[in-house]
Amino acid sequence: MFKLHTRLKADTFEIARLELSRMLLMNDKSLPWLILVPERKGVRELDQLAEADRARLMEEIVIASRAIQHLYAPDKMNIGALGNLVPQLHLHVIGRYRTDRAWPGPIWGTGPGVPYTKEEAKEVCKRLKEAIKKAA
Amino acid sequence: MFKLHTRLKADTFEIARLELSRMLLMNDKSLPWLILVPERKGVRELDQLAEADRARLMEEIVIASRAIQHLYAPDKMNIGALGNLVPQLHLHVIGRYRTDRAWPGPIWGTGPGVPYTKEEAKEVCKRLKEAIKKAA
Repeated sequence: MFKLHTRLKADTFEIARLELSRMLLMNDKSLPWLILVPERKGVRELDQLAEADRARLMEEIVIASRAIQHLYAPDKMNIGALGNLVPQLHLHVIGRYRTDRAWPGPIWGTGPGVPYTKEEAKEVCKRLKEAIKKAA
Repeated sequence: MFKLHTRLKADTFEIARLELSRMLLMNDKSLPWLILVPERKGVRELDQLAEADRARLMEEIVIASRAIQHLYAPDKMNIGALGNLVPQLHLHVIGRYRTDRAWPGPIWGTGPGVPYTKEEAKEVCKRLKEAIKKAA
């Protein structure tokens, strides 16, 4: 059975379960930051996914990306699969701004971010869920 | 007509032209670092590519990734589309090591790297080109 890595669980809120991936909201309200975790056990690298899953993941990246662009109009999207600290395959889909804390550098590892309140997280997840439906 | 961004041209060596993307070698011999540039004019974001191109790009990421894993056996693959400095859509496919200069952080922006000599670059491009054929 697929189980979300404890570190991912601790740092995020669940937004939705897509066809392949769990879509999570990073607990950092300073920028729109989604994480996609394909629900496939033991996968660390992109090339370990089956070809159909890879194509589906690409489409889920696009869905996440369009939802962020629709709601937040960032200056640039950043997409990344790193996993140097958390081995479970996960994709970052992040809206970046010329004014954000790390621009033009990468955002990873530049925290601490600004956590959402419980109410804010609930509201943002709701809006993202609606945007995802439109983008899908 | 598609034209490679001057900054990408200056920082890389051309390895091969795949079905969709130009495959480049970043001029930094401290780690295996490939860049894929889909030959589509004016595209900045992944979701601006047509769906078939996106699926193809995913497969070319996998080809690049497998070539690196085959030749260099890194500890982790890092894949990213940032473009905060160079707007032309390009994908980084990088082999990371627990001993590299930025581990476990992202590698982008942590240079200067170590440039290849002309002969080294030629040799590495040749080996990568062969590895790509096997991975494709």
